[in-house]
Amino acid sequence: MAVTKKIVFGEITGIKEGHHFDNRKEMMPSAFHRNWGQGIDGNPREGAAAIALSGGYADDEDYGDVVIYTGAGGNKNKKQVEDQTWSNNGNGALLTSMNKGLPVRIFRGHKHRNEYSPKSGYRYGGLYSITEAWEEQGINGFKVCRYRLEYIGDYNKPLKSGEEPPTGGEKERKYSSSTIIRLVRNSAIAVEVKELYKYKCQVCSTALQVKGGLYAEGAHIKPVGEPHNGPDVLQNILCLCPNHHVLFDRGSFSIADDHTLLGIEDGKLHVEHGLGSTFLKYHRIIHGYEEETTG
Amino acid sequence: MAVTKKIVFGEITGIKEGHHFDNRKEMMPSAFHRNWGQGIDGNPREGAAAIALSGGYADDEDYGDVVIYTGAGGNKNKKQVEDQTWSNNGNGALLTSMNKGLPVRIFRGHKHRNEYSPKSGYRYGGLYSITEAWEEQGINGFKVCRYRLEYIGDYNKPLKSGEEPPTGGEKERKYSSSTIIRLVRNSAIAVEVKELYKYKCQVCSTALQVKGGLYAEGAHIKPVGEPHNGPDVLQNILCLCPNHHVLFDRGSFSIADDHTLLGIEDGKLHVEHGLGSTFLKYHRIIHGYEEETTG
Repeated sequence: MAVTKKIVFGEITGIKEGHHFDNRKEMMPSAFHRNWGQGIDGNPREGAAAIALSGGYADDEDYGDVVIYTGAGGNKNKKQVEDQTWSNNGNGALLTSMNKGLPVRIFRGHKHRNEYSPKSGYRYGGLYSITEAWEEQGINGFKVCRYRLEYIGDYNKPLKSGEEPPTGGEKERKYSSSTIIRLVRNSAIAVEVKELYKYKCQVCSTALQVKGGLYAEGAHIKPVGEPHNGPDVLQNILCLCPNHHVLFDRGSFSIADDHTLLGIEDGKLHVEHGLGSTFLKYHRIIHGYEEETTG
Repeated sequence: MAVTKKIVFGEITGIKEGHHFDNRKEMMPSAFHRNWGQGIDGNPREGAAAIALSGGYADDEDYGDVVIYTGAGGNKNKKQVEDQTWSNNGNGALLTSMNKGLPVRIFRGHKHRNEYSPKSGYRYGGLYSITEAWEEQGINGFKVCRYRLEYIGDYNKPLKSGEEPPTGGEKERKYSSSTIIRLVRNSAIAVEVKELYKYKCQVCSTALQVKGGLYAEGAHIKPVGEPHNGPDVLQNILCLCPNHHVLFDRGSFSIADDHTLLGIEDGKLHVEHGLGSTFLKYHRIIHGYEEETTG
């Protein structure tokens, strides 16, 4: 089916969080989701504006405020039958939304079955921000593209199906139509690593000079948070400048066990503390620098 | 008075958010705040661990979840009588906490007088993260150092004085003892600016190559949010790489009206869209590249 309506990002007038659709066809006139029968509405040039959680992918994980979404392709009758690729139209669209920082509408279908999904039809779950993209071996043994989405909707937490909006519970929108594109966290252990390297990037040796001192970021090798749950320990943290932190988190480069940089020519990581080899291996696998071996 | 106890960052065992102190002396054995009679507890090498909101500075602004804090120095009998400096011990301590991403404990005294302060004594208001530092002409005409602090405490919002903690309202701590060091926001207008420059940094021409495309950040010249309230418009946004975004936000460089870079030798901003000269002037003033003229 040809998509004729223009793609719309963010909120759509008249369709509030929690809005009920009896069927997919009802979404199309407002451009809420224009692609009947497909999970992802969008294209790699403009980005993805909306996605469906409809129970079609066994690998999807839905925590409400965080959704681990499986990309498109290679799926037949709810089973993965071949590898997914980043060049797939829908998967590229999701990458573009992440890179541009565009908000994504999520809706859940009755077959999705959790506390945020409706008993029948479809329910609008609010806006989400894509904060990570990686690949892994799915439940059925084939490569799947995976995305982490974080809730940035109207409330502090997404409303469960049937739950009334709290009075005065709507978030104060400080920046209209904005979304979080990047959130850099810190911890006591990260400060230790940065001090060890005197705030110099382990890739390019840059230390950003700021008022009152230097600035660098602690980068987790195996990401913290669902579904990776990497630990906040010295062996899992690098000291990087913001540019190399973005590139590392997005998998533009990775690190071999001998600290050679993969994806950066003739590069070698400057190392003064022990890095966990299982963490390095994890990073290489989720960004396609190494094959996952089963058993 | 000599400070003998070791500085402690973050939570202190036994002292919960909302904890009441009858007097300042009670804070000292636990190292909650060790400097009797001073607002800021810390030093430029280690950082600031705790600050007082006690009504001593006319310029302080307290929105609960956001606090605009005036630095130390040049103040007598609640009046500013000379310029503050970044080299002041307390001001340097706050900069270090910002640069390292360390959490800062806030407590409010009864003279502070708002809905978060107690009727008598002092009340612990929770942990905050310092997200900005700049200078301005204070109410009394002298230069003051200013900091923006954002609430990262135990609840979604800080509890008002006398307010009971909501049942189940305590935040799920996903990353223990972590704090947000940097939060990059995005908007539809920012995406427009980035597309215009093809994601190349206007300072160094870097465009970060990531899976599925390019990455850059939209940097507001006059910051958005309290107390600056810069607008989210084309004329107020630059396209920068993450490194130059950090340096620009922290005032390591600024921009003259002819787009010469101030603080970067022989630098010139690459410009393809009109920048607001009042926004540029604002940035130069708050980071000390230009004197504020009154009247």
